[in-house]
Amino acid sequence: MSAYKERSREELLALKSGLEAEYEEAKALGLKLDMSRGKPSAAQLDISMEMMDILNSTSNLKSEEGVDCRNYGILDGIREAKELLGAMIEVPAENIIIYGNSSLNVMYDTVSRSMTHGVMGSTPWCRLDKVKFLCPVPGYDRHFAITEYFGIEMINVPMTPEGPDMDMVEKLVSEDSAVKGIWCVPKYSNPQGITYSDECVRRFARLKPAAKDFRIYWDNAYGVHHLYEDDQDYLIEILAECEKAGNPDMVYKFCSTSKISFPGSGVAAIAASKANLDEIRKQLTIQTIGHDKVNQLRHVRFYKDMDGIVKHMKKHADILRPKFEAVLNTLERELGGLEIGSWIRPKGGYFISFDSMEGCASEIIAKCKEAGVIMTPAGSAYPYHKDPHDSNIRIAPSYPTPEELMQATRIFVLCVKLVSVNKLLENR
Amino acid sequence: MSAYKERSREELLALKSGLEAEYEEAKALGLKLDMSRGKPSAAQLDISMEMMDILNSTSNLKSEEGVDCRNYGILDGIREAKELLGAMIEVPAENIIIYGNSSLNVMYDTVSRSMTHGVMGSTPWCRLDKVKFLCPVPGYDRHFAITEYFGIEMINVPMTPEGPDMDMVEKLVSEDSAVKGIWCVPKYSNPQGITYSDECVRRFARLKPAAKDFRIYWDNAYGVHHLYEDDQDYLIEILAECEKAGNPDMVYKFCSTSKISFPGSGVAAIAASKANLDEIRKQLTIQTIGHDKVNQLRHVRFYKDMDGIVKHMKKHADILRPKFEAVLNTLERELGGLEIGSWIRPKGGYFISFDSMEGCASEIIAKCKEAGVIMTPAGSAYPYHKDPHDSNIRIAPSYPTPEELMQATRIFVLCVKLVSVNKLLENR
Repeated sequence: MSAYKERSREELLALKSGLEAEYEEAKALGLKLDMSRGKPSAAQLDISMEMMDILNSTSNLKSEEGVDCRNYGILDGIREAKELLGAMIEVPAENIIIYGNSSLNVMYDTVSRSMTHGVMGSTPWCRLDKVKFLCPVPGYDRHFAITEYFGIEMINVPMTPEGPDMDMVEKLVSEDSAVKGIWCVPKYSNPQGITYSDECVRRFARLKPAAKDFRIYWDNAYGVHHLYEDDQDYLIEILAECEKAGNPDMVYKFCSTSKISFPGSGVAAIAASKANLDEIRKQLTIQTIGHDKVNQLRHVRFYKDMDGIVKHMKKHADILRPKFEAVLNTLERELGGLEIGSWIRPKGGYFISFDSMEGCASEIIAKCKEAGVIMTPAGSAYPYHKDPHDSNIRIAPSYPTPEELMQATRIFVLCVKLVSVNKLLENR
Repeated sequence: MSAYKERSREELLALKSGLEAEYEEAKALGLKLDMSRGKPSAAQLDISMEMMDILNSTSNLKSEEGVDCRNYGILDGIREAKELLGAMIEVPAENIIIYGNSSLNVMYDTVSRSMTHGVMGSTPWCRLDKVKFLCPVPGYDRHFAITEYFGIEMINVPMTPEGPDMDMVEKLVSEDSAVKGIWCVPKYSNPQGITYSDECVRRFARLKPAAKDFRIYWDNAYGVHHLYEDDQDYLIEILAECEKAGNPDMVYKFCSTSKISFPGSGVAAIAASKANLDEIRKQLTIQTIGHDKVNQLRHVRFYKDMDGIVKHMKKHADILRPKFEAVLNTLERELGGLEIGSWIRPKGGYFISFDSMEGCASEIIAKCKEAGVIMTPAGSAYPYHKDPHDSNIRIAPSYPTPEELMQATRIFVLCVKLVSVNKLLENR
């Protein structure tokens, strides 16, 4: 198909009238579809139901080290949970602290602690005039919401197919001591599905921050969330890399089983150097009497080991893969060659990131909504919800059923075409 | 028995030599006992084991309102969990937010949020020169640890048999705008087992704080933790009382099922006015995608309603009562009339508070340790671990077996006698 921009005004007008008719028909269907939520479908949750049988009233609820998991105690997680999550994110068990059900909460706590208590002896951030975080964009809205909530100034750093623009990261981190952190989703990034290249990770590890209390917030949310068994992205392990580079304390790594077992009832963890963990443990001693060890035990006895997790993730992939492919194939078939949008075909994660022509995203999302299809709000993947080009749209294929997804994607491409044609006609 | 202080130097010396011989015999036993930990015993945990059967792989994990509890969503708790915990702490479900497994964590979060974001529009506490909390003493060490961690100045307020010294509370709260909070365990207080009188609670509700952002931190940890079915303390409900007094926003009430189901795997909650909860929800939106709803469901389906909780608590009482009575009867039998110590006979909660002669507590605890009996460290029930009279000792009878408890208590009274005799001899 020829690019829209190559077409004449008359051709575009004819196209527009056809698309408008199609759109009115679609609206008349009164659909109620949702491609906004990066959450697992009911079918995915069903594959973990046997976890509910793992513990019962006759179970021995003692950990391998003899801890009664029902009672108080063990602030930083039972040994076997550290080993399981350690294997999952490729760090030794001693570099792990197990938390409650939400890695987002761990990240929030980490920023909050830095605000009130600083980082390993630094001035508490709440006493500083200015604290800044670098935000690779497009990125994860909830990361940006945390830094916004704490009044931290966010600086956009463009993503490239290899990861964040490292020239810009190196410059900002080394020159500005107000820069205290950077949000990263290094594998199958939210929303683009990009995995940081080896070179990118190595440049991260070799950063020379102006601020001693600068930390990389490495949210490895999709570390084992592959779509294909035989075509997976590989990410270098950042903790080891930072240690090699003489920066052992520069990174906090976050993970959880939220999109492995049950999103609301999983187990989250932080991995970091001993010095960082020792500081975090000081806070934990004050903050809680310990997280839910019974749930830790439930996870360990269900998955057993890394092999168990890998097998489990294949079941997720079997459900997710056709959904991703359905959306991607529709985009390719309907929009390929039209030059009114671009996207990346991810090999894992939970999202497809679509970039419309400049200035069209809000309008496309509004049109979708009018036709009963909810997309993530425009600008969501940017700090302060401001997409400078108004072009990024996050597509979340996981939650709808395959039938809903097909319908929703058809409406989506229709809206992309219609809004793009209108945009092009503005200048003719 | 006659009071030690009435006895002659010779009588005391004879007593001392007998006690020392007894103490050496006790030491030779090489005991390893612990009366320091306010945690349920294995027998108490066993009565909740059937909770592990409540959910299995064939269960419908939807809430009454149709929420799939396995997935993300529902920030502030499923409806039925709010109703159950609301019934438990006598507030409407709409005044409740359900959290994760630890009410201590909720309290920590509450202070931390006030530090970084203030309270309903007030200046964040981290920007103030001075923030103070009132601390009824003796009190709960972990409360004091939170305020100490955040650099909040703590002011001791003596406890009376009716609750904190309200003359002092009223004066400090109304005169000093740096006073932002007071820690309270209003029912079966930690460690004394005192329940605040009706008049005391009403005076709390009628406080006229100098600081708009003053809040009562009402930790109702032992609200249903009675020892006797027919002899229970009654506590006026503070939220309703504050509302009646025109101070609806002045209190945060905390509770959990930690000492009802499993200490590490329970459900915690905060209760407060709508205005307070609305502010907390703003934080929650940033902090987490929601707490563990499967565990909420597990609790609701196990206890069903308040009647279920009451029946369950009777089983706990049946295990705890003989332990409390064993300790109390030994104190009475061995120390009654000697005037070397005093204690209160609690009707619920987890502790017995013992007051030795002035200046003896540290030495008694050290002597106990030497004979293999671990007591809570001296000063623990006071801010900064400083007991101004060095007299308070917290006894936790719940965790040891009855046999261990009898042995430990015998060692304890022996140490009390020995240290007291030595103290009295200093001045003869």
